Amino acid sequence: MSSNSTLNIIKIGGNVIDNDGHLQDFLEKFAAMPGKKILVHGGGKIATRIASEIGIEAKLVEGRRITDEAMLDVVTMVYAGLTNKKIVATLQKYNCDALGLSGADGNVIKAVKRPVKDIDYGFVGDILADSINTLSIKKFLQAGFTPIFSAITHNGNGQLLNTNADTIAASLAIALSKLYETTLIYCFEKNGVLADVNDEHSVIPSIQASEFEQLKSSGVIYEGMIPKLHNAFSAIEKGVKNVYIGNAANLHLYQQSQFGTCLS
Amino acid sequence: MSSNSTLNIIKIGGNVIDNDGHLQDFLEKFAAMPGKKILVHGGGKIATRIASEIGIEAKLVEGRRITDEAMLDVVTMVYAGLTNKKIVATLQKYNCDALGLSGADGNVIKAVKRPVKDIDYGFVGDILADSINTLSIKKFLQAGFTPIFSAITHNGNGQLLNTNADTIAASLAIALSKLYETTLIYCFEKNGVLADVNDEHSVIPSIQASEFEQLKSSGVIYEGMIPKLHNAFSAIEKGVKNVYIGNAANLHLYQQSQFGTCLS
Repeated sequence: MSSNSTLNIIKIGGNVIDNDGHLQDFLEKFAAMPGKKILVHGGGKIATRIASEIGIEAKLVEGRRITDEAMLDVVTMVYAGLTNKKIVATLQKYNCDALGLSGADGNVIKAVKRPVKDIDYGFVGDILADSINTLSIKKFLQAGFTPIFSAITHNGNGQLLNTNADTIAASLAIALSKLYETTLIYCFEKNGVLADVNDEHSVIPSIQASEFEQLKSSGVIYEGMIPKLHNAFSAIEKGVKNVYIGNAANLHLYQQSQFGTCLS
Repeated sequence: MSSNSTLNIIKIGGNVIDNDGHLQDFLEKFAAMPGKKILVHGGGKIATRIASEIGIEAKLVEGRRITDEAMLDVVTMVYAGLTNKKIVATLQKYNCDALGLSGADGNVIKAVKRPVKDIDYGFVGDILADSINTLSIKKFLQAGFTPIFSAITHNGNGQLLNTNADTIAASLAIALSKLYETTLIYCFEKNGVLADVNDEHSVIPSIQASEFEQLKSSGVIYEGMIPKLHNAFSAIEKGVKNVYIGNAANLHLYQQSQFGTCLS
């Protein structure tokens, strides 16, 4: 495939967003990446802080976080407003023509409110197979914009929904792999999948699906990594070319094929 | 000109935004307007309420409102986050493919921080003649999106700026009049420019620039309206075809040429 048809989707989480210096550094590296790209960002601690300051308590039911109406307003403000616009303005400084999006903008992600079974999660959105509006996203990419997704979606009927950023990133990558050769890059606080969880230098450079079961059963892979890897291999099965897992601070090494762990 | 080349830019203020019923009603009417259109929205009282709840006091110097860093965060959250995304999600419900924007998104409005003279207004952006990125906005309009502007801009160097929504609307209309036959529609709480400020039925249906001085000196036009009208006629001088001033609740009458006061 030509380089025009490749697309990198990068996800950053709270550990990058909560540290201004780390965020600036990451965004400069992200801006320098050539080709079509998309950024998906989670929330960070600022939503929790603001909720607490305006007297909204985090609601938990059986240990699960609930998004009531007041909390939805807070996450909409913080994720789609403050965090998203700060990221977009910073990327513009680095000559990346960023375009901040919630799922409602251009109707790019239409989720469904999570059905109430044992727990009512409130205004939480689940992404379905047809949730991603690849046509709108393709228009933005073709026009030269770099979409920056916050973790807010909508249901198409006027309701905003709080949605997991990891899931948004994976769903975008799967849906867009029909149009582009798509790579999904999860940035987190470690250098990659580690052979020894206490040794940042023990990054396993690549894992193939066929090796995963064996590494898992032999206990090489840290337990906390297993759900992440399951989701990654599931995305690959559904059409994503590669999934990388590594440290946001090392994003510049991606072009040199020295970034984190490559799953394929 | 063909109907393809016309563009309506509608501005709503706090009086519509602060009332959920009025906002829904207005957005349904806005969604039903045919042709290319842009919405510009101001803030409303919610930013003041949230600022107060998180312990940020409105700062005034010589009666002028100052946007310090903490207040900038609040208006960014509320205008570009909560208010903008609620409007976008509602418009999607009404089948209008809305795309929420701050000035940083797609670099659509690059303002300059207001120079400090007698008063330091803080993080307030002034719009210059070349601030409006007509190319990016044209891309969105041509792709079928309806841009929804919040009153937040950026300086191109990573700094977000609080910017007057009336000024954004006028500046967009002036700049885009080079590409489209542009009409600017200011929605406010009255039915139009009134011959008798206490009589909502006394709307003056049209005022031409040549009549303005006379109406002003004869005291027919209510004093509070004069700056609005000055700005409107200035926009017309700079290429905007018409400026309408009227009540948001009457927007559906615009297609029947029965909306508010038409300035030309």
